[in-house]
Amino acid sequence: MLSGEFQVRVYWGHCDPAKIVYYPNYFTWIDHAGHELLEKGGLDQLGLRKRYGLRGTVLGNVSAEFKCPARFGDIIDVFSEIGKIGRSTFEIEHQVKRGDMLLATAKELRVWVVDDEASPSGIRSAPIPDAVRAVLEGRALQY
Amino acid sequence: MLSGEFQVRVYWGHCDPAKIVYYPNYFTWIDHAGHELLEKGGLDQLGLRKRYGLRGTVLGNVSAEFKCPARFGDIIDVFSEIGKIGRSTFEIEHQVKRGDMLLATAKELRVWVVDDEASPSGIRSAPIPDAVRAVLEGRALQY
Amino acid sequence: MLSGEFQVRVYWGHCDPAKIVYYPNYFTWIDHAGHELLEKGGLDQLGLRKRYGLRGTVLGNVSAEFKCPARFGDIIDVFSEIGKIGRSTFEIEHQVKRGDMLLATAKELRVWVVDDEASPSGIRSAPIPDAVRAVLEGRALQY
Amino acid sequence: MLSGEFQVRVYWGHCDPAKIVYYPNYFTWIDHAGHELLEKGGLDQLGLRKRYGLRGTVLGNVSAEFKCPARFGDIIDVFSEIGKIGRSTFEIEHQVKRGDMLLATAKELRVWVVDDEASPSGIRSAPIPDAVRAVLEGRALQY
Repeated sequence: MLSGEFQVRVYWGHCDPAKIVYYPNYFTWIDHAGHELLEKGGLDQLGLRKRYGLRGTVLGNVSAEFKCPARFGDIIDVFSEIGKIGRSTFEIEHQVKRGDMLLATAKELRVWVVDDEASPSGIRSAPIPDAVRAVLEGRALQY
Repeated sequence: MLSGEFQVRVYWGHCDPAKIVYYPNYFTWIDHAGHELLEKGGLDQLGLRKRYGLRGTVLGNVSAEFKCPARFGDIIDVFSEIGKIGRSTFEIEHQVKRGDMLLATAKELRVWVVDDEASPSGIRSAPIPDAVRAVLEGRALQY
Repeated sequence: MLSGEFQVRVYWGHCDPAKIVYYPNYFTWIDHAGHELLEKGGLDQLGLRKRYGLRGTVLGNVSAEFKCPARFGDIIDVFSEIGKIGRSTFEIEHQVKRGDMLLATAKELRVWVVDDEASPSGIRSAPIPDAVRAVLEGRALQY
Repeated sequence: MLSGEFQVRVYWGHCDPAKIVYYPNYFTWIDHAGHELLEKGGLDQLGLRKRYGLRGTVLGNVSAEFKCPARFGDIIDVFSEIGKIGRSTFEIEHQVKRGDMLLATAKELRVWVVDDEASPSGIRSAPIPDAVRAVLEGRALQY
């Protein structure tokens, strides 16, 4: 499966009065990490939009477990890997570490979403194109 | 169980180029909703710090499911309720709605955390005080 | 001139380890306040896009002065008023208060920007439509 | 004068429905850049707190001018340099560039702030220590 890593530094403004990272920041970071992961396989949002009419790889669900807090000044590595791939969905599994210490894990379910004027939400899920699937599975380097 | 609601408006900067809410914002909103919920029972972070040495009601884990995207200008209601209460943890269950339409659900596990110089993380979990538990369970109006 | 007010509450995640509001949040709030101000005159971004091809009321410059810090739990009022109006720009002046105490002032210069494929940035400034100008000046209630 | 640079990448969530960077993000970035600048001279917030009782280098005022929008995927460099240094204040001047193109400039006035129980705000400005001043002026490598 496609895998990658992404490094972030914890700045002052990421931390709250308890002097630990305010948790929604972790989701911003794993979202960034997911973008980096997809781009490693050439799967950038704008290119996918042009080629496949992708509106976005919209989040279907996410879960995260926090084991140890991060603090101002920490250097954090997010290790990301594609998990299960369905018809129109794929998982991204993330491990957030400071050196060897596991700080958090998270799993996102991403949905391949295209425009749909007929839907009340204006969007609908669609099958993941085969060329994209091959990249996610690590069978191809580029779509 | 203690329950409450919290209203937010979706502004321009909450939305991404797909013109829907950028998802980490939902976690900021349910975090705000959780603070409002606890304060409805008189459980504010600073008061709890002074009285019980609370460092924070730190997030242990969270899961969320997204059913329908929110957009610029939407008025969103977050309905929050205390779920299972353990020795040093409690759940907060959130429903995010736009009018009658359910946009998302989320469940947070919050851990009652106090300072602990001896721990590598500087903090440790501690039992939830009985007076706080009574408020969370809806048996008392104030701790 | 068109004027209005907007209330925000300072939450835990808005504050940094110094226990005061992390300053970029003020710009988020005055941006929200500016949207509310314009909408009070019927000037919403999506309506203006449809009617006048507006890409956005893009920020040209901004200055802010911080007089007193805000803290977790504070209720803050942002008072906003349209300032000088030019050919394709208008100012918004903001006062940020906690009760009677002035916490901060800010002045934004907003530029009326439309799409322009020929420009390297893809956008260009354009004259503010007269009907919009009348609302900004307080001479009309709706554009 | 002490000077440095800081690189950021524009991610999806930094951009708004106009597909350009939502502007409060620039202030987060220049704040991060300022932290990096000070740390280049050994001036980290926590060390300064321990040695000089610093509460923070609190923002007194800031102005910024935006010349060209940044977009999803852009790599941005923030070049920062200490400007005028007063008794208890110092300026940080920032240039935000994408390659050779100047996107924005900003100037922050930072105030050396310590705790003061007697003040209504709980904090007060204080003279910048000489050893810190020497680093800011580029006369010393470390305080």
